[in-house]
Amino acid sequence: MIMIGERINGMFRDIRKGIQQMDPKPLQKWAKKQEEAGADYLDVNTGPATDDKVGAMKWMVEVVQEVSDVPLCLDSTDYNAIEAGLQLCKRPALINSVPAEMPKMERVFTMAKAHNAKVIGLAMNEKGIPKDSDNRIALAMELVAVADGFGIPMEDLFIDPLILPVNVAQDHGPEVLETIRQVKLLADPAPKTVVGLSNGSQGCVDRHLVDRTFAVMAMACGLDAAIMNVDDDQLVEVIATARIILNKDVYCDSYVKVFRKSG
Amino acid sequence: MIMIGERINGMFRDIRKGIQQMDPKPLQKWAKKQEEAGADYLDVNTGPATDDKVGAMKWMVEVVQEVSDVPLCLDSTDYNAIEAGLQLCKRPALINSVPAEMPKMERVFTMAKAHNAKVIGLAMNEKGIPKDSDNRIALAMELVAVADGFGIPMEDLFIDPLILPVNVAQDHGPEVLETIRQVKLLADPAPKTVVGLSNGSQGCVDRHLVDRTFAVMAMACGLDAAIMNVDDDQLVEVIATARIILNKDVYCDSYVKVFRKSG
Repeated sequence: MIMIGERINGMFRDIRKGIQQMDPKPLQKWAKKQEEAGADYLDVNTGPATDDKVGAMKWMVEVVQEVSDVPLCLDSTDYNAIEAGLQLCKRPALINSVPAEMPKMERVFTMAKAHNAKVIGLAMNEKGIPKDSDNRIALAMELVAVADGFGIPMEDLFIDPLILPVNVAQDHGPEVLETIRQVKLLADPAPKTVVGLSNGSQGCVDRHLVDRTFAVMAMACGLDAAIMNVDDDQLVEVIATARIILNKDVYCDSYVKVFRKSG
Repeated sequence: MIMIGERINGMFRDIRKGIQQMDPKPLQKWAKKQEEAGADYLDVNTGPATDDKVGAMKWMVEVVQEVSDVPLCLDSTDYNAIEAGLQLCKRPALINSVPAEMPKMERVFTMAKAHNAKVIGLAMNEKGIPKDSDNRIALAMELVAVADGFGIPMEDLFIDPLILPVNVAQDHGPEVLETIRQVKLLADPAPKTVVGLSNGSQGCVDRHLVDRTFAVMAMACGLDAAIMNVDDDQLVEVIATARIILNKDVYCDSYVKVFRKSG
């Protein structure tokens, strides 16, 4: 599984303070910490820290790249901020994210092509998030068709079926799992699938328990990637174990350690 | 999920000693303990404790029923022992198990019909356990057809795709998951699915981690039941959580406790 570390986000107090005071230390601390935990990408999101999303994104990309070689996942609804970040990325980045809406898809796929970036496409549009898997898949199909039209390789497109908090939108859970399964049938090669894992557990008493249970259930349905708390040891352990059960890594008694080291 | 408590088995030292010395205490202790943990069935297996499987099974059924009203899962390859146990069961039992072989199916489905018992059918025959899901499903289909011929209601047939230890037969993992998924397409109503969860983790360093990861992955594929260690709190917690994610129980902050109480 491709693990995208969620922690460099202005939503978190230490990162917000870092952005506001132009202090790179908290960002760099989490960059290194998540890299050591096995992150394959580092999500970078200004969050609500500032109105100058473009300036903040540029500074964040630079300070993170000073200490880590892990590729970045540029996370913003402000496409100027994403484009400014892309221009500074030393390695191909992942764009987080675009809904199944024109002209947003046009804008994002154009910059992805220009910068050799991968893209997270959301199973939603102007009307919101569909309730059932069929309509989520219809939106995924639009993303697939438009991405293909822009010359994005299918394996560089990550479909996010959009998890909602299980305590308020419980009926979405099975639909999300079914969407993950069906995305794999949309094209050959198939697009990848990704979820924002922590979204499912918002407001739950034991968030870690919900996160790690959902993660491996989704992996059983074919999930490729998750934006997640890579600092959650039990979560990383079950992901490593799910890969063993799916026969994607070779079993050895120290497989959890091996998984962390290989990323 | 239907939880079948695995602990009353002569394979365990305390139960073996109990059987050999005709001391009901260890059996009755585990009957109550597993009932409190939420077991829906109690597996009863003489194991290697004695050559008199018939006598031992009759004694075990009687002493367990003295302290618990939980239905029993009669577990033996000796069908005389199972039949003797069935005659003593106060509630409809589950027979564990029959392979896809004549005349064994004939014998077992006949006694199941006579005693209103449910049956676990194994995806194996004289040739062994198939490596891939297609051949497991072919054997499941034989079990479905023969059970139907004997008038067994489809929802009373539990297909066991047969988990093998992940450290020696890793390539079976994805095939088992795929078999669980496909069994649900064999008939309408579909037969149920069951696994012997602990079989997958034999010889692994952290058996509990493998068990709980496999359990929820299989639940994402439609698993209905497991023969398992109901005394493993973390396992029961992830199963309760998977039921929430699958929208099978209503979320509340105390859902784990509610799950344990409802069984």
